[in-house]
This record gives sequence, structure tokens and C-alpha cells, in this order.
Amino acid sequence: MKIALAQMHVVPMNPEKNLETMLNMIESARQQNAEIVVFPELCLSGYLLSDQWLNRQFCRDLMHLNAPLLEASKGLTLVFGNIYEVPATDSGGFHPNKDGRTRLYNAAYVMHDGAYAQRSESVDFLLPDGVHPKTLLPNYRFFDDQRYFFSLADVAQDFSVPVSSLAQPFLIDTSDGPIKLGVQVCEDLWCKDYRIQGESINVSKYLIQNGADLLVNISASPWTFHKNDARDRRIKFLKAEIEQADLSFVPFYYANNVGAQNNGKNIVTFDGDSSAYNRKGELVRESIKPFQQDLLVLDHQKIDKVTAQRGSSARIAQKYHAIVTGLRHIPELLGWQEPPKFVIGLSGGVDSALVAALLKQAFGADSVWTVNMPSQYNSEKTKNAAAFISEKLGVKHLVVPIESLVQEQMEVFGKLDESCPSPQWMRKLSDENIQAKIRGTSILSNIAGRYGRMFTNNGNKVEIALGYATLYGDVGGVIAPIGDLTKAEVFAMVRFLNSEIFKEEVLPETMLPDELFRFGSDDIAPSAELRDAQVDPMKFGYHCALLEAATSFKKVTAEEVMSWYLEGTLAKHLNVAEALLQRWGLKDPETFITDLEWFYEAIRKSVFKRIQAPPIILTSPSAYGFDIRESQLPQWQSPNYLALKQKVLAMDSYQERLALGGRL
Amino acid sequence: MKIALAQMHVVPMNPEKNLETMLNMIESARQQNAEIVVFPELCLSGYLLSDQWLNRQFCRDLMHLNAPLLEASKGLTLVFGNIYEVPATDSGGFHPNKDGRTRLYNAAYVMHDGAYAQRSESVDFLLPDGVHPKTLLPNYRFFDDQRYFFSLADVAQDFSVPVSSLAQPFLIDTSDGPIKLGVQVCEDLWCKDYRIQGESINVSKYLIQNGADLLVNISASPWTFHKNDARDRRIKFLKAEIEQADLSFVPFYYANNVGAQNNGKNIVTFDGDSSAYNRKGELVRESIKPFQQDLLVLDHQKIDKVTAQRGSSARIAQKYHAIVTGLRHIPELLGWQEPPKFVIGLSGGVDSALVAALLKQAFGADSVWTVNMPSQYNSEKTKNAAAFISEKLGVKHLVVPIESLVQEQMEVFGKLDESCPSPQWMRKLSDENIQAKIRGTSILSNIAGRYGRMFTNNGNKVEIALGYATLYGDVGGVIAPIGDLTKAEVFAMVRFLNSEIFKEEVLPETMLPDELFRFGSDDIAPSAELRDAQVDPMKFGYHCALLEAATSFKKVTAEEVMSWYLEGTLAKHLNVAEALLQRWGLKDPETFITDLEWFYEAIRKSVFKRIQAPPIILTSPSAYGFDIRESQLPQWQSPNYLALKQKVLAMDSYQERLALGGRL
Repeated sequence: MKIALAQMHVVPMNPEKNLETMLNMIESARQQNAEIVVFPELCLSGYLLSDQWLNRQFCRDLMHLNAPLLEASKGLTLVFGNIYEVPATDSGGFHPNKDGRTRLYNAAYVMHDGAYAQRSESVDFLLPDGVHPKTLLPNYRFFDDQRYFFSLADVAQDFSVPVSSLAQPFLIDTSDGPIKLGVQVCEDLWCKDYRIQGESINVSKYLIQNGADLLVNISASPWTFHKNDARDRRIKFLKAEIEQADLSFVPFYYANNVGAQNNGKNIVTFDGDSSAYNRKGELVRESIKPFQQDLLVLDHQKIDKVTAQRGSSARIAQKYHAIVTGLRHIPELLGWQEPPKFVIGLSGGVDSALVAALLKQAFGADSVWTVNMPSQYNSEKTKNAAAFISEKLGVKHLVVPIESLVQEQMEVFGKLDESCPSPQWMRKLSDENIQAKIRGTSILSNIAGRYGRMFTNNGNKVEIALGYATLYGDVGGVIAPIGDLTKAEVFAMVRFLNSEIFKEEVLPETMLPDELFRFGSDDIAPSAELRDAQVDPMKFGYHCALLEAATSFKKVTAEEVMSWYLEGTLAKHLNVAEALLQRWGLKDPETFITDLEWFYEAIRKSVFKRIQAPPIILTSPSAYGFDIRESQLPQWQSPNYLALKQKVLAMDSYQERLALGGRL
Repeated sequence: MKIALAQMHVVPMNPEKNLETMLNMIESARQQNAEIVVFPELCLSGYLLSDQWLNRQFCRDLMHLNAPLLEASKGLTLVFGNIYEVPATDSGGFHPNKDGRTRLYNAAYVMHDGAYAQRSESVDFLLPDGVHPKTLLPNYRFFDDQRYFFSLADVAQDFSVPVSSLAQPFLIDTSDGPIKLGVQVCEDLWCKDYRIQGESINVSKYLIQNGADLLVNISASPWTFHKNDARDRRIKFLKAEIEQADLSFVPFYYANNVGAQNNGKNIVTFDGDSSAYNRKGELVRESIKPFQQDLLVLDHQKIDKVTAQRGSSARIAQKYHAIVTGLRHIPELLGWQEPPKFVIGLSGGVDSALVAALLKQAFGADSVWTVNMPSQYNSEKTKNAAAFISEKLGVKHLVVPIESLVQEQMEVFGKLDESCPSPQWMRKLSDENIQAKIRGTSILSNIAGRYGRMFTNNGNKVEIALGYATLYGDVGGVIAPIGDLTKAEVFAMVRFLNSEIFKEEVLPETMLPDELFRFGSDDIAPSAELRDAQVDPMKFGYHCALLEAATSFKKVTAEEVMSWYLEGTLAKHLNVAEALLQRWGLKDPETFITDLEWFYEAIRKSVFKRIQAPPIILTSPSAYGFDIRESQLPQWQSPNYLALKQKVLAMDSYQERLALGGRL
């Protein structure tokens, strides 16, 4: 018996297109003699549709699309994800969802030879033939499943039956005889932290207990770096728990979609990596087409006779592919057939240069304009770099000097200043912001609107975190392609593009620092160029690592960073060189504390800018947008915080602690 | 025995201030001989703190504040809300939250005479003395409890015991002898749609089953219109379910906070309305200080001898108080002691006039500047209205003509137009947007930045929904005070302000239409004034009602609206006059369909603007921001939709259907 894993490109909110893809892939699988064809979770509609799920008319419309799939299942078995709304007119009357609306499952459908498949043991409880709800509903990061769906665990609770009794495999006839097919949806595989009876809610175990001969997991699982390795480990965890229950693991098939979807504030990419595991929990096959549609046809009988090694690709290469995939989502989310057109404010600095290169890679040179907008503060060096990059990329380059607009605004505010007093520093800062706003709003957004283009936000994650950008200036744009890359990653991706993609110096090496983030005197050091001799206030490398810690799963706090400093383990914990701390003067406790407080306070203070910022393409385990959710809140320093701070300030030097090997 | 309900003003992220408030209210309650003092849910920290809850250091810091409260509980009983983190070092090892972090309860704490109170029946399962987790975790609207907290129901599932067995009251000594005090948290009262064993998870019933003599609900329950009536009905529902189980209802005390909190995209207000109900489930007392701190001291023995009638206040008056409360949250969220200063772009239209009046009411005339920014398209009528309103409000009024800035931009784009072709209509639209952006970004945002003020977003809900505003123009601002009011409500609130608050015509009546939303020729009809003779394209009244339906709990779809039209019941369902449909030409099926498609499509298309819009003060049951969550998605018209549309277009007229009384 052959099983086909259909790693399809799901286009959100385009059911007809997705249905067409499915029918084509089914046909192709049929030609390769596959008997079971497995599609991803919610593959007709897309998964990240936000409150579209509250629209029950939409859900019913989606369920109507089961009919052509039922027809297509003749002669084989189909597994795919779709919505199931529990009919309000059922014998039991109205069954509420947790929000009081009609009950909605994010379900795996199983169809066999033109009919909804039957379970090997029939169950009642509003679980019709061929419909198996997702058991575990993720509600962390950008996931909002608990907001919309009613889980198999919720069904179990409602009817007061063990959830294990509801996890019944479906009985399917195959050329190898009848088999029991256990199905599950995405998170059901990541069960470790969902608890019942002191154990994890291990849906795989329940299915095997109930006789499943093989397991199929249908997913809409976003790409993150090393998620495939994490999944391999998770399969091992399932197997161990299953063997503890004196059962044997069974072949495990995982189908995931490719493409990108969004939640308004983030664009989330899907790499696929559809895979199969054998009875030993070993990987036997993975899709070698990350981010691309693929059909993997596997021989179920031979699954224990082969193993595979994971292909590996560097983090920065994977992030590059994720960003390009995310960018290519733009026409989909607009419902456009043609490639969109862009305009990029190209300052001659490294961030906008990278964005221009990424846009060109995603849509081709014809889709991209660059525009340099010099004022009196812009150097010949950066202006020339912008022209050079544009020529190398082969994109149209405009130069729009902003001096006349700046002067006109200065005149308006010169008059207003007379009747509206304010301190000198505030006026100077305002003068800088005026330039940024003229670039972002007066020029870029109007070029976009006037000539039918979109303009990009070129901020990196460190700038977005610290609020080092001007609202209605460089905070604007339709998308932030590198908004989830630290500056260190920006430099790394520029190197990657030159060496691996372009194979020549398209993005000038003068934009790149040495390993301690130092620039030579002829280089283009990061600067907003809004006043004379301005340089970015960030301690690159160090702030990049600090930000990764602060936004990581552990949400490392200033207190924790201070305790590392007290122990002399700061560089070790941040995985940076001691020399980098030295280079930024951080071995001096006062410099360290001043910087640390500025860093966390800048993150807190700039929430208001992120509220009005465009969607970010997600490339890290924790992105600003809808992944990190932020209220506007004042600062609070706890007594514990203040005590730690005093301890640090009382230190002679960090060097000494370091010499003591962290001993206090 | 006397019980005090402490309706405190909770300041989010200001634990010291909240602790001080609590200690003061405890002292005041003690002086009034109260033996039990009840505070709201999460009253030390605030409730809507977003991902601050992922910061376990912060949670531990909050738990340290239990110590002074334990001290303050000497001689009486305290009930209040705080976080409880299950210690990772417990005998049972590490207990995961659903997200894999350490387990966190949103808990009711009960302290009695300097100690954590003991349960009447001891329970194990990581539920220490004096700590009772919230059982039901709301995850609809802007609520995200499932993202952060582990519930009593989750504890029950983890340890495989009935949740009812864990809902044990606390044993408290009082002057009336020992009593069993049942505590619950907010949503636990709204249990109808949470299901277990085919019934609602009725925590009140469990507590009474387990011997509770009285129930205390601690809430952080946002204001919405008529929520108090809904709560009265919910109490009746609880009582009915309890009596079905052959139990008697017990006195029910409800303490809710006042103030405002935010989630970044919405400002949510809390009116308090702390209340007590007797054994019959009747209201016996409510706080008559909506949105204000209050201490209600009740005699528990006399609770069955009194009843109260709800005070009633009109919807628009309540919304007015909610908005003023929401505005006054701004200094809190910034951590400022002084009132913030504002600048309002005052066009002479009704929306900005209302915003100016609201800001003046919230912060006083000294805090407000208005600025009129005329171009060639602005009429004397609106300019004069702006000056009149400013004078009446007593606020500083600036006039900053924008013609010179417009001309300078036209010159820049005149040059660009030569090398960048685009259609004429696009340039005309761009010319309009340029003016809006000059007002929003070049003038307002720079006045704000330069003179230390904040500028407001003056959009109403209809404009925000339909995207009738310019990004980086009138979409900007730090807050949208009337962003959750329809235009009909804007008119109503202007009338309310003139008649009830100002008691004179501060906001000119010429801005107000008649009951069919018609303006006289001398009136100021809504217009963006970006070109000659421009008027707003909205069908006011009708689109207001349509928007309320589309964003309501039912999420009324275009399909449903078409079916109402087919039935001749459109006006009835939207609760508008038939004459209003007539006035907008909607009795003609083609006009109706064209408008309906424009309406829904405009909402869909403008998600990208809302992504970059400022926080909205929530006044409806469904506000844009974080309450309504939106992905950017293309349009999809289902076969069902298209069929209905054809049916409508085949109608002779709506009038005929109406005459038939909706019969088809």
C-alpha cells in the first residue's frame, strides 16, 4: 500500500483554488497508485483567518466543499482538514461553543471510496463518521485556537467520557487488507505540556491503544528554525510514552502545508517538511522541497526498511527562504493575480539595501523601484551606495531631494515656534523627525499611492524593539520584511546573499562590520543621517543577543541579566564574545547598568509605535506583532530589581568576577 | 456581620499604588466594622497586561506583595485577586502551564486574621491554603486568559478529580460564628456555555454543594451597556440550576474594579457596579458610583430584607462616561503624574468637534489645543465653526493654513509625474491624500512632537470600518476616543453634551441632521473637504445599523442581509425606519446590492489601515482593535452568496415584498 503526503500550497481564503490544487494532487497520487492521500490541516481555507472563524456562514460554505472531495475519494482514502460545525438542529438541541456560538471543530476528515469513513469502534457524542476534531488547541504565540474551536478534549469533558475513548481510528480497506487509520491534527503531536491524570494528553497513545495500525498527523505548522529537529525529538517522546504503556509505536505520517498566512500583524510562513517515521520513531523520509509544493509517495510496507538523515541548511539561509515566501504572500492576501509593485526608500544603509535585494529576489527587478531622498545630512558615500546597489539589482532608481520640503516645514514651524514655546532639545528632535516623516509619508507613501506601488518598512528587529524609528516616518510601510531579524542577522544575510545567491558583491561590503561590529573609517556605519555625524546608539551584537534573550521563550528579565553580570557569566549566557562586552565598555558596572536600563525602558516606551507598525514577516521564535502581545504600561521596578541594581553598582568590576569564574 | 465590597480604582502595572489603595480601603472598612473586605480580580497588578504575564519574575514580585496584605488581614477577612505561581520545587516536581512555562493561576486569595484561610474540606492538588484559581478562562473578544493561566478546571483534569470536589469554600470565623465562604473569579459567574457532563460548569453550584454559606465573586469585568442587567439574569440562571440540584441559593457578593486598562489596540473601561444579591437572587444593593471608587458596606444578616431597583442611565450617557474614563487612563498608561496635553485637528466637522469636547471634559480646557488647517477646499462655514467651538470650550485655537505645503509637494510630484506615469484618477486621489497627510503628519504629529503634546484620531467607527480615512493622515494619533461610536452615536452624543453637560449650544446644531440624517443647505454636512463639493459617501443611519449588525455577536453576513431584503424585513432587522431605506434609495434592488457589496468589500479592504491605527476606546460589544481580530484576506464570494445576489437582482422591488409582509 502506498501513502501520499500532499504538501500543498494553501492559499488562505481561496477555497476554490485550494480545492483545485487538492483535486490535481489526488489525481497525481492516484496515478502513482497511492491508496491514502493526506492533506494538511484546514487546507481548503487556510488556518490563520482570525475572526473569519466567527462567521458561521463562511464555515458552512466551507463544509459544502466536502462534496467534490467525497466524489474524488472514490477508489481511495482521503485525509484532510476542514471545519465541522455541529448542527444546531441535532437531536440533542443546541450545542454551544465555548463562546456561546454554535460548536465548531477544527477537524481531520477521513473519506473512503466516496463515503465518510467509519470508526473501528463507533462513538456517539456529536462525532459523525469521518470527522475527528483536533484534541489540543494551542493558544500561545500567535495561536488563538481556543478562541474559535471546540476540541476533542472539550467533547470528552462535555459528555464526561475519557478523551482516550473518543480517539478511535478509522477502519479502511486497502490492498493489504483492512487497516485502522489513526488521525490527529497538528498540536496533537506536541502534547507534552497538556495534562490529564498527571500525564500528557497523548493522543497518539490513545489511538494506538484503540488499535491504530498507523498514525497520520495533518498540520498547519509554521516554519521556525530547527522545528524539524524538535519534531523528531517529539516523535521519540511519543514513542517512549507509548512503550511505557506496553504498546508498540506505529508508522507515523506527517503532512504539512507550504506558503504563508497572516494574522494582520505578522506574516507566518510554512515550510512543509512533510515526513514519515518508522516503528522505531526514526525519520524515513522528508520532503526535500522546503516552502514548495510537493507530493511524497511512500510504500507503507517498506517503511521500516529505510531511514533518512535530515538535510541541513544554515539558519540564515532558512530565514532568507522564509522571508521570500512571506513576501510572495502579498499578492495572495490582496487577491491579486499579478505581482505587486514596490518602492523602497534606499538610504544607502544596510537595512534598506537588504530589503531591496529581498524584494528583487521575490518579485524580480521590474517590480522594484528604489528612491534615495537626500537632505543636507546625507553623505556622498551613502548616496553613491544607493545608486550602486540599484544598478547592481537592475531596478529603477529615483533621487528625490527633500530639502525644499524641509525648508517649507521649517518655515511653518518657525512661525508656530513664536507662539508655542518648547525646549531647545525638543525642537532639535522634532527637526530630525520632520525629515524622517517627509521621507516616509510625504515622499514614499505618496509615490506608493500615486503610482500604484507599495512601500516597505525597512526596520530591523532591534530598531523595532527599541523604537529607534519615527512614527509616520520610517515606521510606516505595508510590510516589514526584515522586522524579525536582529542587526547581526541583517549583516549575516547580506553576506549570505552576496556569497550564495548573487555570487558577487551586489550589496557593498563597506556596509559590513568586523566580528566585533566595528566599522572602518571608509565604511558605511549605521546612521539615520538626520543630523551631522549621527551614529546609531545601539551596541550591535550585544543588544542583538540581549533582545533575543528578552524575547525568547524564557523572557529574560533585566533582573536575570544583572544576576548574570554579578556572576560574571553574562557573555556566556548571551553566547557572545567577552571581547564584545569589552568593545562596548560594558565591563564597567555603571555603563552596563545605564545601558541595560535604557534598553528595557526603550522597549517598554515604544509599544505605542509598534501598535501602529505594519505586519512583520516572522522568522524568530518570538516576533513583534501578534506573536508578542503588548499593553501600554508604565515602568515598574520591584524591590528585588532595585536591590540587584545596587549590588551591581557596588561591584568593583566585571573583570574581577570573571576571573573568579563566576563565583561570588 | 458586615461585608465591604471594595470597588477600587485599579491602576495597571502600579502595584505599590494599588496596595496603598487597598490598605486605605481596608482601614476604612475596618472603621465601619466590616469583617470581610472584598477586592476585585488581579487588583494589585491590573488584569489586561498582555504578555507581561509571561514574565514569571514579575509574577513572583507580585506575590511578594501578599505579605503586607497578610499583615493587614489581622482581625478580619480579606478576599482579593492576585497571581499564584505553582512553585517548580514542589514535591511533585515541575508542573507545566499549558504553554510549558511554570503553572500560573489567576487566583482569589482569602486571608483571615493574619493567615491564609483554610478550606472547609482540605484539598491537595497544588491548591494551597487561601488560594483559589479562576475556574473558567474567557478567550473571546479581547480576553486571552487561556494564553496565560491554568484554571481550576485544568487542575481537576490534571489530577483526574471532579472540578466540583475542588471548589471548596473557606472556613472563616465571624461575629456570627463560623461561616463557609465560597469564592470565585469573574467569568466563573458567566458559566452557561462552559460544559461538563452535559451541564454548565456551575462553580456557584459546586461551592454551595460543598457547604458555602455565601458566595463572593471578584471581577475585573469591563463595562458594556446593559452588562448589569445581563448579570442580574445570570444570577437568576445560577439560582435556577442550583435549585434544580435541590440546593438553596445563598447571598452573592460581587466586587468589580473601576478605571481603565488597555491591550495596546483597545482601551477597556471598568464601571464597577459592585453589587449584592439575596437568597432569592434579587439585587439588594449596587454601587451608585459608576466608574468611581466606592466602598459598599453591607449587613449580611439583613441582606434578605431589602431589595433595590437598578438605576438606569441612557446608553449614550454611559458611553460618554466610558470615553472620559478611557481618556483619563492615558496618564496612567504612560506613568505620568500630570495631565497630558493634547492637540486636536479641528476641521469644523462633527467628529473632531466631539473629540475636542470630550478631551476638554476629561482634562480641562488648559490641556487642549485645537488647530484648524484650511486649504482652498475648506469653507468659511467650517473654519468659523472650528473657531466658535474652540472659543466656547475655552481652549487655545491655532490656524495653520496648509496651502504652501501642498504647493511644495505638488511641485515635487509634478516633476516625478513626468517620469512616473499613472492614471488621472489615481493622481487626483493622491492629491486628496496629500492634503490629509499634510494635516495628520506634517502639521499635527509635528505640533505634538515639537510642543510636547499628543494628537488625537478623530475617526468614528463607520469611517474606521470602511477605511474612509488616509493612512499617515487622519488614521494617525495616539488614541481614537470615538473610534467605537457609529456616526449616529456621534450625533447623539453631541446632542447629549449640549443638553445634559454643557446645557448650551457649545457644539453647533448645524452639524446635526434630522431624524433621517438629512442636512439643511446651511448646515455642515459631513465632508472630508479634500476637493470641491465633496460629501461623505456613507449612508448614515443605515450604514451605522449595518455595521452594528456586521460586528455584532452574530456577525451578520452579506448573505443574511440579502435574505432580509428578500423577505422584506431589512428595516425591521436593522431596527431603522422604512423611510430611511427610502431616503437612501435602497428600495431599488440594484442600488441595495451595489451598496451592500461596497460596504462589505470596503471593510475587508481596509484591514491594512486598521493594522496601523491607534488604540480605540471600547464602547460597543465589538470594537475594532484587539476585540475584533483581522487577517488581511482576499474577497471570497461563495456559490450561496452569488445565488442570493441573483435572487435580489431579480426582484421587481423591495416595496412589493414589504407589502407582502415578508412572505416569499
